[in-house]
Amino acid sequence: MAPREVEPHLFVIMGGSGALARRKLLPAVWQLAAQGSLTAKSIILATARRRHLDDESYRQWAREALAAAGLPADETCTHWCDECLHYHALGEEGPEDFQALRSRIEALERQHDLPGNRVFYLAIPPASLPLAVEGLGAAGLHRAPGWTRIVVEKPFGHDLESANELDRLLKRYFSEEQTYRIDHYLGKEAVQNLLVFRFANPVFESLWSRDRIASVQITVAETAGIEDRAAFYDGVGALRDMVQNHMMQLLTLVAMEIPASFEADAIRNEKAKVLQAVAPIRQQGVCFGQYVVGEIDGIGVPGYLDAAGVQPASSTETFVALELNINNWRWQGVPFYLRTGKRLAKSTRQIVVNFRCPVLSVFDRYPDAAVSANSLVITLEPDEGFELEFVVKAPGDMLTLQPQRLRFRYDEVFGRLPEAYEALLLDILTGDQTLFVRIDEVLAAWRLLTPLLEMRPRPYPYAAGTWGPREADSLLAPVGGVCWLNW
Amino acid sequence: MAPREVEPHLFVIMGGSGALARRKLLPAVWQLAAQGSLTAKSIILATARRRHLDDESYRQWAREALAAAGLPADETCTHWCDECLHYHALGEEGPEDFQALRSRIEALERQHDLPGNRVFYLAIPPASLPLAVEGLGAAGLHRAPGWTRIVVEKPFGHDLESANELDRLLKRYFSEEQTYRIDHYLGKEAVQNLLVFRFANPVFESLWSRDRIASVQITVAETAGIEDRAAFYDGVGALRDMVQNHMMQLLTLVAMEIPASFEADAIRNEKAKVLQAVAPIRQQGVCFGQYVVGEIDGIGVPGYLDAAGVQPASSTETFVALELNINNWRWQGVPFYLRTGKRLAKSTRQIVVNFRCPVLSVFDRYPDAAVSANSLVITLEPDEGFELEFVVKAPGDMLTLQPQRLRFRYDEVFGRLPEAYEALLLDILTGDQTLFVRIDEVLAAWRLLTPLLEMRPRPYPYAAGTWGPREADSLLAPVGGVCWLNW
Repeated sequence: MAPREVEPHLFVIMGGSGALARRKLLPAVWQLAAQGSLTAKSIILATARRRHLDDESYRQWAREALAAAGLPADETCTHWCDECLHYHALGEEGPEDFQALRSRIEALERQHDLPGNRVFYLAIPPASLPLAVEGLGAAGLHRAPGWTRIVVEKPFGHDLESANELDRLLKRYFSEEQTYRIDHYLGKEAVQNLLVFRFANPVFESLWSRDRIASVQITVAETAGIEDRAAFYDGVGALRDMVQNHMMQLLTLVAMEIPASFEADAIRNEKAKVLQAVAPIRQQGVCFGQYVVGEIDGIGVPGYLDAAGVQPASSTETFVALELNINNWRWQGVPFYLRTGKRLAKSTRQIVVNFRCPVLSVFDRYPDAAVSANSLVITLEPDEGFELEFVVKAPGDMLTLQPQRLRFRYDEVFGRLPEAYEALLLDILTGDQTLFVRIDEVLAAWRLLTPLLEMRPRPYPYAAGTWGPREADSLLAPVGGVCWLNW
Repeated sequence: MAPREVEPHLFVIMGGSGALARRKLLPAVWQLAAQGSLTAKSIILATARRRHLDDESYRQWAREALAAAGLPADETCTHWCDECLHYHALGEEGPEDFQALRSRIEALERQHDLPGNRVFYLAIPPASLPLAVEGLGAAGLHRAPGWTRIVVEKPFGHDLESANELDRLLKRYFSEEQTYRIDHYLGKEAVQNLLVFRFANPVFESLWSRDRIASVQITVAETAGIEDRAAFYDGVGALRDMVQNHMMQLLTLVAMEIPASFEADAIRNEKAKVLQAVAPIRQQGVCFGQYVVGEIDGIGVPGYLDAAGVQPASSTETFVALELNINNWRWQGVPFYLRTGKRLAKSTRQIVVNFRCPVLSVFDRYPDAAVSANSLVITLEPDEGFELEFVVKAPGDMLTLQPQRLRFRYDEVFGRLPEAYEALLLDILTGDQTLFVRIDEVLAAWRLLTPLLEMRPRPYPYAAGTWGPREADSLLAPVGGVCWLNW
């Protein structure tokens, strides 16, 4: 397949001097340019409120950002910055500010001879989204001589109602086809690896249902705490920050039916169907947690309530474990256990598929030959790969059975996997919506989780550096002795 | 499970000065003794025609054999030889010779205070079997105060009629429960690993039928030629030497139904059923070959007809490829391809299970995303282990699919696997017939293959060091583009 064609365009980063732009967006765009993936002119316009920046000083700032991201700040890079980067101070974001932005955009397009294709990447806090969307729309920036695409980060709203509201606002100006809801935490490689694993391997696809699978566990664990993000995190919590978007996306990828084709809407239709089929979550199927003082890698770390900026006696959850049930023919009766948290024992993102036990052990007269259920471990991070736990006979005269693993790791074959962001940006630039979350998925996830937000279970304390509150284990009791797989 | 109890016994090796005794039997018995696996007194009586040997000189010969097998010829070993090894010259094997043998056996049992448990291991050429069996029986050695077990090596007969005849002779004196037909080429570990793989892993067992499997390939390849064995091999050939016993056993292990228990006859019943369900082999499903001059590992080697002792213009096959079809509910329509040969490109014993292709590729708009069928490779030797070939996405912006492998190798987890012979001897000593071939299996295999012997297809020439004659490839044509997997 030939490299995808990128058309000449203007890439507007709103929030162009923020952390996301600095750490992720600029490095990714520069990498795409340096690799030659941008097959046509790509001009960048960063906007922010800051008045004291101009093109020159922004380029300087950008060069430092690229160097800090570990990219060579060489002459080519400097040349690219001078050629392609521009800055526009957006001021207080009043209507006249957006008109001024429009004039600047049009001037740049004339200057660089661009046909009027535009991306608006809203790298701004959730609370600022409505003002930006409204401002763009009012200034007529939702249309252009070429195509216009708008990119919004998660979270999309903070509950069902606010998500609906934000959607209504967006839809006043931008169609669904123009809207790219990005979950950069779930990289393109990881998603595609999962989809290829499921749909290119009949051996596994034929096992992929209630007939063969007893339960599924999805873990997204971080050792990090909330760092300096209390202002964002406190009052938001893990359910909104991770479960509603990232974990629900993982759930859909694991549970979706096989689409008729590998086209964006064929895939997104199936993902949305999964979320629509999830049964309302029972109160007993939920466990919230909040970390207290503990140890990570042998070093003492303070509890959540001691973090700067966190409300005293905050009941924000830093850990969520959920049992979900999907009411369709494929998954009826197979519990899906989701678990995410900060300050856990390990940073990992993993899907564990537990297959059903053997219906009968033919080895039962051998005391050391207990059979165990097979399981498949899909690791998204770190050490991306697949491991199939199966049973072998340990060598020797006794019939002793042991679980062992068939293993595959990407890095052993392919070296380090590429950074996720670049691939997603290229998808935006070429108009491929496959890996972007459609509004019906967003709303279905909120519909499912908003009752929990209203229920607000009191979080159980857990020591930093553990696998969360003990109470999360009892979620798994119904499936008889299955444990969270921690490794 | 506690180590198995071995009762005090006399172990008679007929052919005790031959190659099998020297290379395999004595080292295995000594290893068992040295490891403490022999929980009771085990006295060895070697017999052969040679008159010039006696206890002393046989012990000397045995010590040299053990040293040559790489075992430490230390004081313990010398002590064991002096204590446990005895020799008896059997002479011309007339009736009076067997009476003399009986007297010697009874004397030894008195001398060592043995209760009269006896193993007769017939490590003698096939042509000598009838005389030995008849001699033992006529001397009343088929019964003893304790138990009596007789061990016979492959091949059991040289066609259906001779196998039946040999069986009738054996049955005159020995019951099926006393008879141990050993296929030492198929080690105990390898068989048990296969059975455990199949019956302890529902993930694979649920794939194990015509619903999911397109074809199966079983390869037993040797780089060795016939060495100094022309006298045995010429006129016998690969079909009798390897297919009738070893490869048919592998076939039954791969294809058998799940037994109700892991008991000898539960397993042997299922194995026999497989052989009884194999359809008569079609002439087009057979390819014989005979190696001509070629290269092994870059070194020129002569052809079969140039080997010392081979008849000029011998039409003995050194290579056989077969297509078998099993007419039962599990396997109807799934071809089993068997292939064995001398002077092939590599020494390997491998089972390849080719699963069915995806019913539909959802990736068909991507030119580099051709899906391939999954396959499972079970390697018995060398590098014992399992590999599941599956499809992954190669990292990068293009959707490029690649076959990769989930791997497990025993040696990486367990170190070197133990020698097969010891375990099989221990089975004989403890009366476990599970891994010994029952007469109905032997006869069913001969029933299947004897028509081929009568058909005597002309062998196609193949260069030493290749994978056999090109004509063997056309066997696989019906399954559309499947190739022999050579690695």
